[in-house]
Amino acid sequence: MRPRIIIVGAGFGGIAAAQALRTADADIVLIDRTNHHLFQPLLYQVAGAALSPADIATANRALLRRNRNTRILMAEASGVDAAARELCLADGRRLPFDYLILATGAAYSFFGNDQWREHAYVLKSIDDALAIRAALLSAFERAEQCDDPAERQRLLTFAVVGGGPTGVELAGTIAELARTTLARDFASIDPRRARVVLCEMGDRILTAFDPPLSQSAREMLESLGVEVRTGEAVKAIDERGLNVGDQRIDAAAVLWAAGTEARPAAKWLAADAAKNGAVKVMPDCSIPGHPTIFAIGDVASFDAGDGPLPGLAPVAKQQGKFVGKLIAARVAGRSAPERFRYRDYGTMAVIGRSRAVAEIAGLKLKGFIAWLAWSLVHLMLLVDFRSRVSVYVHWAWSWFTYGRGARLLTGYAPEPGEKPRTAGLPEIEAEPAE
Amino acid sequence: MRPRIIIVGAGFGGIAAAQALRTADADIVLIDRTNHHLFQPLLYQVAGAALSPADIATANRALLRRNRNTRILMAEASGVDAAARELCLADGRRLPFDYLILATGAAYSFFGNDQWREHAYVLKSIDDALAIRAALLSAFERAEQCDDPAERQRLLTFAVVGGGPTGVELAGTIAELARTTLARDFASIDPRRARVVLCEMGDRILTAFDPPLSQSAREMLESLGVEVRTGEAVKAIDERGLNVGDQRIDAAAVLWAAGTEARPAAKWLAADAAKNGAVKVMPDCSIPGHPTIFAIGDVASFDAGDGPLPGLAPVAKQQGKFVGKLIAARVAGRSAPERFRYRDYGTMAVIGRSRAVAEIAGLKLKGFIAWLAWSLVHLMLLVDFRSRVSVYVHWAWSWFTYGRGARLLTGYAPEPGEKPRTAGLPEIEAEPAE
Repeated sequence: MRPRIIIVGAGFGGIAAAQALRTADADIVLIDRTNHHLFQPLLYQVAGAALSPADIATANRALLRRNRNTRILMAEASGVDAAARELCLADGRRLPFDYLILATGAAYSFFGNDQWREHAYVLKSIDDALAIRAALLSAFERAEQCDDPAERQRLLTFAVVGGGPTGVELAGTIAELARTTLARDFASIDPRRARVVLCEMGDRILTAFDPPLSQSAREMLESLGVEVRTGEAVKAIDERGLNVGDQRIDAAAVLWAAGTEARPAAKWLAADAAKNGAVKVMPDCSIPGHPTIFAIGDVASFDAGDGPLPGLAPVAKQQGKFVGKLIAARVAGRSAPERFRYRDYGTMAVIGRSRAVAEIAGLKLKGFIAWLAWSLVHLMLLVDFRSRVSVYVHWAWSWFTYGRGARLLTGYAPEPGEKPRTAGLPEIEAEPAE
Repeated sequence: MRPRIIIVGAGFGGIAAAQALRTADADIVLIDRTNHHLFQPLLYQVAGAALSPADIATANRALLRRNRNTRILMAEASGVDAAARELCLADGRRLPFDYLILATGAAYSFFGNDQWREHAYVLKSIDDALAIRAALLSAFERAEQCDDPAERQRLLTFAVVGGGPTGVELAGTIAELARTTLARDFASIDPRRARVVLCEMGDRILTAFDPPLSQSAREMLESLGVEVRTGEAVKAIDERGLNVGDQRIDAAAVLWAAGTEARPAAKWLAADAAKNGAVKVMPDCSIPGHPTIFAIGDVASFDAGDGPLPGLAPVAKQQGKFVGKLIAARVAGRSAPERFRYRDYGTMAVIGRSRAVAEIAGLKLKGFIAWLAWSLVHLMLLVDFRSRVSVYVHWAWSWFTYGRGARLLTGYAPEPGEKPRTAGLPEIEAEPAE
């Protein structure tokens, strides 16, 4: 019987592993809670009504159509029985494995303030992005028909918490939506007067970059009209806004991009975890004591010598490819690569429609040239060609017309913190799978 | 003070009226419950995961950006006070008008069996289309992991009720999704064995066409693998399928495309209505006794001499243009056109990815040439260029690769019959608007 390899998660890590394993003489099962691979770096553009979900997501079955040895199950994993070598699913089923790759990623953390989940939007999935989009567009529609000046101002105020790349990208895109796209589309309100506030607890935004680049990014944001507030922590978030430092900001929507925590692989394996819950892994990405169980991407903490690798897409992708090749070699009886090495192609954060900051191979770039680099790298990271063409068309149109391609308000946006109704997740009786 | 013109509904009729009025010396208000204009003829392609919502819908504010005399309100109308010349909104506000154009369209009717609404999907809005898409894609995912053969067969059975163009298009697209797009994407199930049943109460499908074309359409559907059942009425619909004639069909989803009824303009005005509730209008599309109140499109019943005009997009579009020009002429003190004449460019129904039936100017077309005509006409009907380019890209890709561009399962699909949470609809206090 052929070896069984289970991959949990169809993000950058899981898909890269599946691709590296596609010619292996093994039976591979890819498990994901959704039916699609999502290009998360561009998710903020769906939230900002610039791109459609289908521009940045691809059905897993379409993506892996040529992987003859791979089966896809839309299901949710809930634990690992390492001794029995079985993956436990949320519906009770247990799937046996010879090799297991956990690539389940990370989720947002509210630093213990879980009550804020009810009132703040996060950005991790397509549904999250559509909820934000609906909140933004409907705020302007409501403000247009609002007679109370204080309420109108609240409806035209948006707060983003977290000065990392996600927060910076969100703040920039909201500012552009208000000041460029919607600018002349209303009669009673002036969208250009919308207030976008980016709150960062630390003393500067984009702490992963050199301080001068952080400062450039801040200036670019400010030139887009974003108010950047550093050095104060958020004290409270409610349905009408938030309290940051000792100030009250009434807002139509609060977007939380301030902290992530890894999904529970470490707990599942009773293994050592980093501060954010990510499971510490060996140089070959395996779990200590479990040479056939691997963790990659945001769910793992890989010590690169000078600290853990960051939770970035290229890290997950390279680790996925590495682990895939490693397992393929073992299955084929060949010598396997022993140690993962990350090739750092740089870090980037985009600000608005044409500016960015980037650190690539020691070069520090800012402005339009950084944006070009950013867009090239991201378009090449897109996993399938169709998305690239589609995204090119939509971006080019957006670029030339300042238009927003996907400014639709549809009715099924969840309230912040609402449990997503996981439509489509099969409800199977707890039968042993074979 | 300039005359005030209110247009209710941003469909084909309402938008055409607004465009015809864009240079009029008047203040125009366009009211719609959503923020977008929807190209309904292609909605079935969103339901079938071939197109994205943004490919066929455009934000009203973007569409009418250059209409300087037009204001847009996202709100819901609930009645007309014809004596006071005021439009009543659902939130209690009343908007005065000098001219009123009702273009609110139609909704699906269950012929009195409203309890079926809970169990059947309809196709009228983007949310409806996404609900159907989710039902289709998740049925295959569930079937893939289902061990019970009877349940698995139910999950691979889809029933469409109604043999008009919408039902035919839906049945064809589901059959193609199963037999072509998904055909090789699953390991435990064979999607090609999916059963698609089209149920029509009358003795043939597409009764608006000549009988030979109905027969051709039936044969094309059957060659796609659709079972066409005519001459039997649906007796019951429940959460596991339907009863048609004396047969029980267990199905994953029942799609209802069998009857429409106009929205309540006739009731609002206590005016005579046709059988489907559409308000009977004069030759200039005004309501009898109310020369400044007009009804166009599916909400109106216009007697063209040999019966009422059908509820088709070109009818609504031409009537909108006519009424817009009429009001513009009156406002300018010019002589106004007196009587609407419909130019019949033909009727078409598409079957699958490359076939259709069409009757144009007396010509009866079928097969690929009819499909060419259909696609040309529909692409020209798309109201803005961006959508055309976007749709071209997606269609061309789909065509050449048999792929499906928008095969995404996202979590917020409503259950059938669930009241859409009208996100974004402003909740305004009942203050008099000015």
